[in-house]
Amino acid sequence: MRRSGRRAGTADTRGEILAAAREEFAANGFRGTTIRGIAARAGVDPALVHHYFGTKQALFDKAMRFPFDLQSVVPAVLDGPRSGIGERFVRVALELWEGPEMRPAMLALLRSAATDPTAAAMLRQLLTEGPVLALASAIDRPDARLRATLAGSQLVGMAIARYVIGVEPLASASKEEVVRVIGPTVQRYLTGDIGSSRVR
Amino acid sequence: MRRSGRRAGTADTRGEILAAAREEFAANGFRGTTIRGIAARAGVDPALVHHYFGTKQALFDKAMRFPFDLQSVVPAVLDGPRSGIGERFVRVALELWEGPEMRPAMLALLRSAATDPTAAAMLRQLLTEGPVLALASAIDRPDARLRATLAGSQLVGMAIARYVIGVEPLASASKEEVVRVIGPTVQRYLTGDIGSSRVR
Repeated sequence: MRRSGRRAGTADTRGEILAAAREEFAANGFRGTTIRGIAARAGVDPALVHHYFGTKQALFDKAMRFPFDLQSVVPAVLDGPRSGIGERFVRVALELWEGPEMRPAMLALLRSAATDPTAAAMLRQLLTEGPVLALASAIDRPDARLRATLAGSQLVGMAIARYVIGVEPLASASKEEVVRVIGPTVQRYLTGDIGSSRVR
Repeated sequence: MRRSGRRAGTADTRGEILAAAREEFAANGFRGTTIRGIAARAGVDPALVHHYFGTKQALFDKAMRFPFDLQSVVPAVLDGPRSGIGERFVRVALELWEGPEMRPAMLALLRSAATDPTAAAMLRQLLTEGPVLALASAIDRPDARLRATLAGSQLVGMAIARYVIGVEPLASASKEEVVRVIGPTVQRYLTGDIGSSRVR
C-alpha cells in the first residue's frame, strides 16, 4: 500500500524514507533504484529525500545499517553443545533474514552486490569481518578466516536460492527443514575437518 | 583492448557481438548493460546489433546459450568411485567457469539474476532442471530435487564469493583447494544423509 499524498517532513519521515529505500533497493538492486522511486514509495517529494540523505549512495549506506548489532548473535550460537553450532547459526540467520526489518535489507544487499562495487564491498566485509568470522575465531580452529568464508558462501548461496531466485523446494521449506539440511555443512566448515591448512 | 573503428557485418561479426554482449552483461548485469555499450565493445554500429539480435532481452537469451551441452558433464562426474562424486563435480564446475568461454556467461548470469526476472528464471532452471538434477537423479537417492538445489546453492554461493565479490581466501585459492573444502559438502548433499525426507 503506497500513500498517494505528499507530506512535509515530520519526526517519522526520515525513518519512513529509510524503510522505503530498503524496499526499493530490495526489489531493484542499487542500479535499478531511483531517488524518485523511493520518494514515491514513501509518499514524499524527491527533494526531501535529497535533503535528508544527499546522494543515492549515501542513502544506500544508511539504509543498509542493520537495526541492531549483528555481532550480538555470536554468544547465542556458542551457547550450547559444540555439535549444535552449525544448526544454531543457520537458525539464527534464518530468523534474522525472515524478520520484517532485516529481510528487505538482506535482499537489497544481495541484489545490489551483484553489480554495485560499494554493495559488493559491504557484503565482502560482512563475510570477512562480520559475525561469521567472530564465530569462527571464538571456536578456535585453524584457518578461521577460510572457515568463515566457507560458511558465509553456503549461507549466501542458500539465501539467493531461497529468497532471490526462489528455487524449490528450498524456497518453501520450513526454517527447521533448512536448518536440518544446511546445519551440518556450516558445522563442518566451522568446527570440522576441512581438509586443508594450505589455503589462508 | 577495444577496436576503435566501426565495421560492416562479416561472417564473424555475429559471434563478436555475442562475445561482446557476454562481457558487458558479465561486467554490468542485465539492467546495467546497453546495446550501445555492447556495440562499442564489439566495434560495430548499434543498429547492426539490433539488426542481428533484436532487443536487449533477445540478445541476452542468445548470449547465455552456453557453447556446449552442460548435461555432458554428468557421465564424467559419475565415472569413478561414488565417494569422489562431490570432488569431481566441484572440479568440473570450476574448470568450466574458469574457462575463457564460460566465465563471462557465468558472471553475466549471476550478476543479472539478482535483479532481472528472465535471468533469475534461467538460473532457477539451471538449478532445478540442469546437470545438478541429472546428477542427483542418476545417483538415485531419495529427494533428488532437494539434493540438486542444495548442491546448487553451495556452488552458486561459492561462485559469488569467489568471482563476483572476491572474498579472500576463497578468491585466490587454487581450484584443487576449493575442490578439497567444498567437495565433501556437495558429496553429502548428493549421496549422504541430509536428515530430511519431509522437504520435497
